[in-house]
Amino acid sequence: MFRSVEQLLRPRSIAIIGASETGGGGWAKQLFDNLAFAGFPAEVYLINPRRSELWGQKVYPDFGAIGTPIDLGVAVVPAEATPDVLTDGVKHGLKAALVYGARFGEGGDPDGARRAAVLRALSEEAGLRISGPNCMGAVNVRDRLLLYPAPRVRALRSGSVGVVFQSGGTFQFWLQQLSVRGLGFSFAVSSGNELDLDLADYINFLVEDEGTRLICCMVEGIRRPDAFVAVAEKALARAKPILVVKIGASEAGQAAAKTHTGALAGDDRVFDAVCRKYGIVRCHSLDDMIETALAFAQGRLPRSDRIGMAIPSGGAKGLFMDYVAEEGGVFGALAPQTVADLRPIIDPGVPAENPLDVGAGLAVAFEKYAEACRVMAADSNIDVFAMHVLVPTEAEDRVPAAPFARVAAAVEKPVIGFTRLQQNVTAATRAFQDATGLYFLQGMPATVRAIQALSGYAATLRRGVPAPGTSSSVDAADVSATGLQDLLTRHHLPSPKSAFAATPDAAAERAVEIGFPVAVKIISAQASHKTEVGGVALNLADASSVHVAAAAMAERLVRHVPGARLDGFLVQEMVAGLELIVGVREDPQYGPLMLVGLGGVLVEALGDIAMRLLPVDEVEARSMMMELKARALFGAFRGRAVRDVDAAARAIAGLSRMFLVYRKALAELEINPLIVLGEGEGVRAVDVRFVRRDDA
Amino acid sequence: MFRSVEQLLRPRSIAIIGASETGGGGWAKQLFDNLAFAGFPAEVYLINPRRSELWGQKVYPDFGAIGTPIDLGVAVVPAEATPDVLTDGVKHGLKAALVYGARFGEGGDPDGARRAAVLRALSEEAGLRISGPNCMGAVNVRDRLLLYPAPRVRALRSGSVGVVFQSGGTFQFWLQQLSVRGLGFSFAVSSGNELDLDLADYINFLVEDEGTRLICCMVEGIRRPDAFVAVAEKALARAKPILVVKIGASEAGQAAAKTHTGALAGDDRVFDAVCRKYGIVRCHSLDDMIETALAFAQGRLPRSDRIGMAIPSGGAKGLFMDYVAEEGGVFGALAPQTVADLRPIIDPGVPAENPLDVGAGLAVAFEKYAEACRVMAADSNIDVFAMHVLVPTEAEDRVPAAPFARVAAAVEKPVIGFTRLQQNVTAATRAFQDATGLYFLQGMPATVRAIQALSGYAATLRRGVPAPGTSSSVDAADVSATGLQDLLTRHHLPSPKSAFAATPDAAAERAVEIGFPVAVKIISAQASHKTEVGGVALNLADASSVHVAAAAMAERLVRHVPGARLDGFLVQEMVAGLELIVGVREDPQYGPLMLVGLGGVLVEALGDIAMRLLPVDEVEARSMMMELKARALFGAFRGRAVRDVDAAARAIAGLSRMFLVYRKALAELEINPLIVLGEGEGVRAVDVRFVRRDDA
Repeated sequence: MFRSVEQLLRPRSIAIIGASETGGGGWAKQLFDNLAFAGFPAEVYLINPRRSELWGQKVYPDFGAIGTPIDLGVAVVPAEATPDVLTDGVKHGLKAALVYGARFGEGGDPDGARRAAVLRALSEEAGLRISGPNCMGAVNVRDRLLLYPAPRVRALRSGSVGVVFQSGGTFQFWLQQLSVRGLGFSFAVSSGNELDLDLADYINFLVEDEGTRLICCMVEGIRRPDAFVAVAEKALARAKPILVVKIGASEAGQAAAKTHTGALAGDDRVFDAVCRKYGIVRCHSLDDMIETALAFAQGRLPRSDRIGMAIPSGGAKGLFMDYVAEEGGVFGALAPQTVADLRPIIDPGVPAENPLDVGAGLAVAFEKYAEACRVMAADSNIDVFAMHVLVPTEAEDRVPAAPFARVAAAVEKPVIGFTRLQQNVTAATRAFQDATGLYFLQGMPATVRAIQALSGYAATLRRGVPAPGTSSSVDAADVSATGLQDLLTRHHLPSPKSAFAATPDAAAERAVEIGFPVAVKIISAQASHKTEVGGVALNLADASSVHVAAAAMAERLVRHVPGARLDGFLVQEMVAGLELIVGVREDPQYGPLMLVGLGGVLVEALGDIAMRLLPVDEVEARSMMMELKARALFGAFRGRAVRDVDAAARAIAGLSRMFLVYRKALAELEINPLIVLGEGEGVRAVDVRFVRRDDA
Repeated sequence: MFRSVEQLLRPRSIAIIGASETGGGGWAKQLFDNLAFAGFPAEVYLINPRRSELWGQKVYPDFGAIGTPIDLGVAVVPAEATPDVLTDGVKHGLKAALVYGARFGEGGDPDGARRAAVLRALSEEAGLRISGPNCMGAVNVRDRLLLYPAPRVRALRSGSVGVVFQSGGTFQFWLQQLSVRGLGFSFAVSSGNELDLDLADYINFLVEDEGTRLICCMVEGIRRPDAFVAVAEKALARAKPILVVKIGASEAGQAAAKTHTGALAGDDRVFDAVCRKYGIVRCHSLDDMIETALAFAQGRLPRSDRIGMAIPSGGAKGLFMDYVAEEGGVFGALAPQTVADLRPIIDPGVPAENPLDVGAGLAVAFEKYAEACRVMAADSNIDVFAMHVLVPTEAEDRVPAAPFARVAAAVEKPVIGFTRLQQNVTAATRAFQDATGLYFLQGMPATVRAIQALSGYAATLRRGVPAPGTSSSVDAADVSATGLQDLLTRHHLPSPKSAFAATPDAAAERAVEIGFPVAVKIISAQASHKTEVGGVALNLADASSVHVAAAAMAERLVRHVPGARLDGFLVQEMVAGLELIVGVREDPQYGPLMLVGLGGVLVEALGDIAMRLLPVDEVEARSMMMELKARALFGAFRGRAVRDVDAAARAIAGLSRMFLVYRKALAELEINPLIVLGEGEGVRAVDVRFVRRDDA
């Protein structure tokens, strides 16, 4: 499933194909300079049939002339020349190629498509591993192998962050900024149009690399969903977080991604469901991914999600609370002992509570302030502690590091240092970070989002990826409409009570057995459009109404459809409650997928739905319901009784199990509405629509 | 309505009350040093009964000893001593006081409240203007009058941004960061607990100050809504934008604001309505207010809201599109000539469109890139042009300024330079800003929000503040339920058609006149609970059903309520359509307020509403409807006809006019539902609930 990236990121020999001063608009020279700068961490050969010497090195006319197989060929030649030169390389044992240039069929150009086909054949038939085309190269920071055509990457620090960006144009700037903020890298790859090696391959390499602890990606589209999901699951099992910024939250963005790299962005909400299942941390922006990476870099995860926070400002505290509410976060309530311990430390007049404004008096009383932080961070009701720090920018900013270092050292939970505003990060700042053992996040909204990402990841890690259900050998023909009803009932999705009655008298009797109100529907092969012959009566409140309605229907049938045969009546319980829509289907990219939303046309207009990949158990079912914006309707709302959320969770989980067993037979199944009755009264699957595989 | 801030911000003489090395925890010394640093821009006197000389200056025992009236007394004495010393000052002609310390009754402490009462009396009876208490002082940057107890403010540049922060703890950091980003200040005030001078007074001073072009505020609560609204209107009339970060988007944040400064944050959505009416730009975070201030600092406003954008990265372009979609922004479509002019400049293979990825080839080809930007910015289909620039951080970053300066100089519309990520801002950056004539925003989401803020402000400026309606002399007694119905009809809010019928036969006739379906309701003094005697029949489809239903009701009435008298039947048109809730009421802080939402329990649970201060005209009514998340329901949705949005807008605007005339009589009025029928079919006010003033 995963192709090796070894020869790209750890080659022992490299050939620069098209080596010249101007090759690739100067890129050949830049690459050579970067390799020279690092003292040639691999053997470097130059290839150019029109030169014999360059930059003090021998130049070979082709791969054959080198006389030894090369691990990695770096192509800095025009697109037209690339297929031939790589074919020549493969003939002489070339194992991998890095292709920077574009024009390999991206815009639908037939010549480019032909060139891409040659490269694809080299990959599939000769096993040549290709990175790119249309990329900006790769960087093995650990071994200083800088296959990136600009000097900007030389300053990158070595560390434990692995990076894969599909967008080459943004790659170097993001690396540089995370580096300024104090983090270092193991490997960083710009993957381009992914003709061969793709995101999943690179992430797999990073997951397997021991020195990589955190993986950050910018994604335009996922080419092999199965491989991506597999590597995400592998990363979760090894507790290596994957952070992702993905283009395509909007339809316009999705179209742009497709134009740009030809990658299909897919339904953004389905991708969210994938992230949720496999613990992928989705960041809203490139800047957010920097703050979130800094939060993860401490290597600590919270045991639960209760936030603690301290800052010397009442105003900033109020804003922080707004952002926590916005992101659905929770604050822990301080233990009485913590309150008692804080009181003598903080300013008189400010309340000893969480979040904590320590008062202006402690703004530059660093020892005292850190002491208050230490007391708060130790409270067992706090799972992650956010601490505002007056982080120095200039060498003359005198802020002691030791008190803040002690706050983090005294506990094992995450301690997130932050500044209330963005500010410059200089050598003085990084020295302060090193001395405190903390990374400092910037800006309160992004800090709160990073904390929530940390808690969310930790929760997924505790839960793990649920085992998939096993499909039965049932095939499509075995699933009939009536058989399905039994199946649904066995999976906690009962239909409304109903009974057949041959005559209006019998209909009235059945109605009494079922309980009122009821609906009555005519059954006749000739009354397929029931409403046209008035063949449905709703909300009948007593036996006589049922009798009158059924008799009237029979009469109308005879009158409107001459020769029609009356088969009888269906008498059905009328149920009123909260209407959900619950559906399962096969997503073409990621497999079985569930949607839960509130039913009705209003909510459809609002798109108020939750999505998950299967399996969905009762815990996840509840989380889907509570994710809905209209979740207030599950509680006592405007005089209505609390809804039977337990039964709804059982029903949703039941549908998940059932679909996983019968998915060979069923392409999709939607219950709309699934009516959720009052507490203890269960649910009713009123209308079930399904598509069998062989119909689909 | 506005108190003078003159003596606080432009005093000719200042007395430091409590001058000593340790006074106010060292603040007295810091203040003196700041005044000395600036070469004493005002006469400075020191007061301390226990000293005769300090810092080479004579020290006076009290105000009397100085022998001349002092403009501003700066109190750095304990709270307990403040009332007496200021009373003494007033006796000798003191005009204004700046009180840093807290403990003036904030937490409900009775001693503090007594001290506050003395200060309030000095203000009200002797006209002493007081800034604070519990504040961090004020800075007149233009005249270098630094009444702030820390050296951090010395580096602030002079400029045209005026600042008022209720939060003193965050004040200096925000000033410093905006200064780093290259903007300068006229005056900056931390207003604290606003015992006397408040936000409205300070803003008024800034609006009247010619050198102030932009006003930035951090707000916890508005103490005098009428004065705040008046100064906001004045600022809009003079085209001086007011930017605000306000605490209290969440209930937790509101509670925190109240604890902190005692200011009532109020309903956050009402504050949003205030901002919308008066063109106040509300920013999501302190960092956003920095980016937005930079966007406004250019002093250009867009003529409409169509965005143009260029960047050398397909990936970043996709993200930018996502953020524009998220913020409800629109891109302009390029004119054919612009497309033709761009084609030869940008990389082959990338589409010439808006937003524009110019291709990697132009990433460092600055002249060519700026040329593409120039072509785009000139397109008349673009109202505001966002241009990514590789902004230098270090002196050795070689990026020419002139090409980018030309982009901005060639047009009059706003040209917003931005970087895709946050980055350090150094002297090199500021020099580049100066050379290009641009301010560079950082990060794509914040850049998009700033652009939207610019467009929104420009739209409000074009529209102006609508003139309020005039109240009539109608009093509560004149508004009866039946009179109200006529009023509503005259204001485009007709009720469903209805008629009285004495007998079942007459009911059937009236139904034919009205048109089907209809509802029939029994009228009888003894049938007050209509549903119990089955006195309501809905959805009757023909005359015979009406007759049968009415007769049956009459029979049930006689049977269930012995001796009951039948008065007749109400026959009413049944209307089905989109249900709105439309309400008007008096907000206790800001006056007449309108709410529009979709009706029904689901939408209520979602809180999907729009709010405006009155008056609301048809244009604003439309914008309220289109602001709803469920706005899709106004269009053709799931086979339903397009709704009569024109009629709904007339009805909403009608209700606004009506309430403004009759507000002396009516406390509130709610129509729920207002049914919006299909196009051309109008609306029906089905259920109207109102509260008269004398009932309220």
